Amino acid sequence: MKRSIFNIIEPDQTNSLASCIFDRAIATLIILSVSVVFAATFDLPKEVQGAFVWIERVASVVFTVEYLLRIWTADLKYPGVSQFRARLRYVSSGMAVIDLLAILPFWLPMFLPGSLLGIRAIRLIRLLRILKLNRYSEAMAGLGEVIKEKQREIFGSFFFVGLLMLVSSLIIYAAEHDAQPNAFKNAFSGLWWTVATLTTVGYGDIYPITVIGRIFGAALALLGVAAVAVPTGIISSGLIERVSSRKASEQKISYCPHCGKRICG
Amino acid sequence: MKRSIFNIIEPDQTNSLASCIFDRAIATLIILSVSVVFAATFDLPKEVQGAFVWIERVASVVFTVEYLLRIWTADLKYPGVSQFRARLRYVSSGMAVIDLLAILPFWLPMFLPGSLLGIRAIRLIRLLRILKLNRYSEAMAGLGEVIKEKQREIFGSFFFVGLLMLVSSLIIYAAEHDAQPNAFKNAFSGLWWTVATLTTVGYGDIYPITVIGRIFGAALALLGVAAVAVPTGIISSGLIERVSSRKASEQKISYCPHCGKRICG
Amino acid sequence: MKRSIFNIIEPDQTNSLASCIFDRAIATLIILSVSVVFAATFDLPKEVQGAFVWIERVASVVFTVEYLLRIWTADLKYPGVSQFRARLRYVSSGMAVIDLLAILPFWLPMFLPGSLLGIRAIRLIRLLRILKLNRYSEAMAGLGEVIKEKQREIFGSFFFVGLLMLVSSLIIYAAEHDAQPNAFKNAFSGLWWTVATLTTVGYGDIYPITVIGRIFGAALALLGVAAVAVPTGIISSGLIERVSSRKASEQKISYCPHCGKRICG
Amino acid sequence: MKRSIFNIIEPDQTNSLASCIFDRAIATLIILSVSVVFAATFDLPKEVQGAFVWIERVASVVFTVEYLLRIWTADLKYPGVSQFRARLRYVSSGMAVIDLLAILPFWLPMFLPGSLLGIRAIRLIRLLRILKLNRYSEAMAGLGEVIKEKQREIFGSFFFVGLLMLVSSLIIYAAEHDAQPNAFKNAFSGLWWTVATLTTVGYGDIYPITVIGRIFGAALALLGVAAVAVPTGIISSGLIERVSSRKASEQKISYCPHCGKRICG
Repeated sequence: MKRSIFNIIEPDQTNSLASCIFDRAIATLIILSVSVVFAATFDLPKEVQGAFVWIERVASVVFTVEYLLRIWTADLKYPGVSQFRARLRYVSSGMAVIDLLAILPFWLPMFLPGSLLGIRAIRLIRLLRILKLNRYSEAMAGLGEVIKEKQREIFGSFFFVGLLMLVSSLIIYAAEHDAQPNAFKNAFSGLWWTVATLTTVGYGDIYPITVIGRIFGAALALLGVAAVAVPTGIISSGLIERVSSRKASEQKISYCPHCGKRICG
Repeated sequence: MKRSIFNIIEPDQTNSLASCIFDRAIATLIILSVSVVFAATFDLPKEVQGAFVWIERVASVVFTVEYLLRIWTADLKYPGVSQFRARLRYVSSGMAVIDLLAILPFWLPMFLPGSLLGIRAIRLIRLLRILKLNRYSEAMAGLGEVIKEKQREIFGSFFFVGLLMLVSSLIIYAAEHDAQPNAFKNAFSGLWWTVATLTTVGYGDIYPITVIGRIFGAALALLGVAAVAVPTGIISSGLIERVSSRKASEQKISYCPHCGKRICG
Repeated sequence: MKRSIFNIIEPDQTNSLASCIFDRAIATLIILSVSVVFAATFDLPKEVQGAFVWIERVASVVFTVEYLLRIWTADLKYPGVSQFRARLRYVSSGMAVIDLLAILPFWLPMFLPGSLLGIRAIRLIRLLRILKLNRYSEAMAGLGEVIKEKQREIFGSFFFVGLLMLVSSLIIYAAEHDAQPNAFKNAFSGLWWTVATLTTVGYGDIYPITVIGRIFGAALALLGVAAVAVPTGIISSGLIERVSSRKASEQKISYCPHCGKRICG
Repeated sequence: MKRSIFNIIEPDQTNSLASCIFDRAIATLIILSVSVVFAATFDLPKEVQGAFVWIERVASVVFTVEYLLRIWTADLKYPGVSQFRARLRYVSSGMAVIDLLAILPFWLPMFLPGSLLGIRAIRLIRLLRILKLNRYSEAMAGLGEVIKEKQREIFGSFFFVGLLMLVSSLIIYAAEHDAQPNAFKNAFSGLWWTVATLTTVGYGDIYPITVIGRIFGAALALLGVAAVAVPTGIISSGLIERVSSRKASEQKISYCPHCGKRICG
């Protein structure tokens, strides 16, 4: 019986009907449960809010049972080690930690009383459930590899942008603080403006009004175009390399100029 | 006579003078008719508005006649099947559905009385006429193929962006709701802010003012740069691949100038 | 003497000292003259404004003399045709038309009295002088070729964006007109909002406030990312093709698999 | 002893433990010292501000000692020239100038009394210390090379954008000055708006309200998309070229598996 439960809950095992139904039910419950967090922020009639509480209860209990079943069947997942070690290994794996965090916000308040703000922050942890939907990660895998391959360039440009942001926030603070003491209250306001300008978001809540501030702002906005161009260029070139190296390994057939025979490799 | 009408209205048939004139007249009428929808939103004198009503009437009648003629000649378009089946097949084709929807808003109010809002929404359906201008689709075809080829990566990144947006709207709501209960009224306001930030539009109608909200906003704006970089990279690499594979297939066959034999590869 | 004047004023002729000095003097005068148009918009003391008038006078006279000298030496530029035809050909060339337009705003008001607004608009024509600085056009040439090569794709995506903008302006007008009759007064306001959203500029002067308008706005902003991604991809791929085809023509050396001899081609 | 000090402070020398500790201590002190400039802009209690003054004093003294030691050991860095020449050469090198500028703001006010504004501007010079963190420059080197290689295209597009900005600021000033004399006070306001539009930042502090101004603004916003697309395309193509040329030089030499002879090509 343990074996058949394991086959059902383990996603990479046999594609039996029961396993299929289980996967879809869990996915539906995840999406439903996250949608409820979203919908709960609206002013809704009491009955609907009551229904939300029940959906949350059912989802939390189901996810808890799922978590416990996965711990119980851990020795089938990691054969060859003792039952205790298998469970320990499973509990400390990334997906299991997410599973635990996703159910904690439901069980914790029963034991620990907390402030309203604390509860709201804790409730956001439930959003981690969305990471359980790793179904589509396959489509993202190619992109992830490119980012991993190019991580040196990406990290380098982020480091450069970080330094630039720090320096820029101090320059704009120095230029605008006297003219707009409320808008540019401290260097953090300068940083907020810098990010909005460099990423070309430009909310317009704070902006320079002095001549020096505007000249610097214009220069930063132009640099912001480069700040968009550089990561785009890195990702483009990474994606193209991947394709061309794949092609190269497929079509690497040429002929020797000396003996005329075919060379594969 | 049916045959000659078919030759005139069918775009891919013989390029006779009549067919040419018909095509241009329809294209002109489509652009005129859409421009009238645009112009009708301005405060114009009664006479001009009266003229608009007449343009709309003429256009609708012409498009209706065109639609009926296309149904009538459907058996010439799909030879080998019965007349009824040919017409059914044509009526259910994509372009015919657009043709029908584009004339419906004119004929429907004559039979069904409706609220003002309903009529305005229905009138927008007339904008579908613009899709009848599929003349330039050829220039877009290359791009369309690239998007189709890369749809997995594009879908994957959209799915990821969608999840990010959902989670972000809840985080910013939690961070800003207490400080700005009117601006961040519910998670939908958070979603609106998230889209404006992630796409770097940044209207500035709502923006975070708390420290936590601004730090999260800055992080999201920087992610927004990546959100622009990734689809750009995917499309760039797709376009380049297309060109290089086209070149490869063109130049894959050559002949040796010394022995005259064919060289593949 | 005519020959030596021609050698001095013609940019592509001998690089004599006189020619060099002439080129730099004209370039300086162009930049000075455009800077004066810029500076004249500030509230400056009377003496400075007087100096500006004199700079403008000197520049206009110099450009007029330059223009007349170029007409006079046109027969040396186009040898083999009659003097009249050579001058006519020069006068109707692109650069000569710009030269003429750039001096007209100075001479015209002497003969024709005009309204203040008219004069200001005419004065802007002087900005065409900047096109005389075609020195750096060489650096732009590579880019220009890419744009010319890819013009079909670029035109196609612009046509698509144009249609999208037209339709979007009508949808947002229909969605927001009742809620904000002043902001979305007509479809032109909708078009202004559409451009600001699609290009991710997002001034925030007008923005949707209804639920339908915001959902549509969010969709348009996400499409705006694609609207940036597509031309970037086209230009990137064009620039890369250029380099790779240049390399291909340089390195096209391979060996015949049958006879082993070298093939250049 | 001079030799051992030189080995410790010179980054590219032997990786002894002392050298490692010295490097990390200086890097920590740089980051600490810049963070203090940032934190000093907040309203903090007197004790914390006092601690900041002490951190600044310690950092400045350490950087001064480091600077003097580097001058003292300059003859070991440039062997073969006289001690005086070696020191002169070091003092005039880029990094030494930055080192000097980074400590000057601490020592200068002791000798020269200055206005408050002057001091604040001078204090910003301390931010140059961040350039001493050239550790990660390696990761940026690849990108730097690409920018150097493509500098002609980049300079060309910047020159074009600069001209466009100058002309645009005058056009929008002419179009909007009468309607909004306060917002578009002079051509500099026009330039500020132009930069915000062309880079798609779009603060929304000033924007056109006349029909002509909006039409021009829409055209400029669309051009702004190209202004982002062109440098992105240049950088992408540069990065891809680099990779493909590196691959080409790596794989250009292979050996025939049949006859064992070397194949170049």
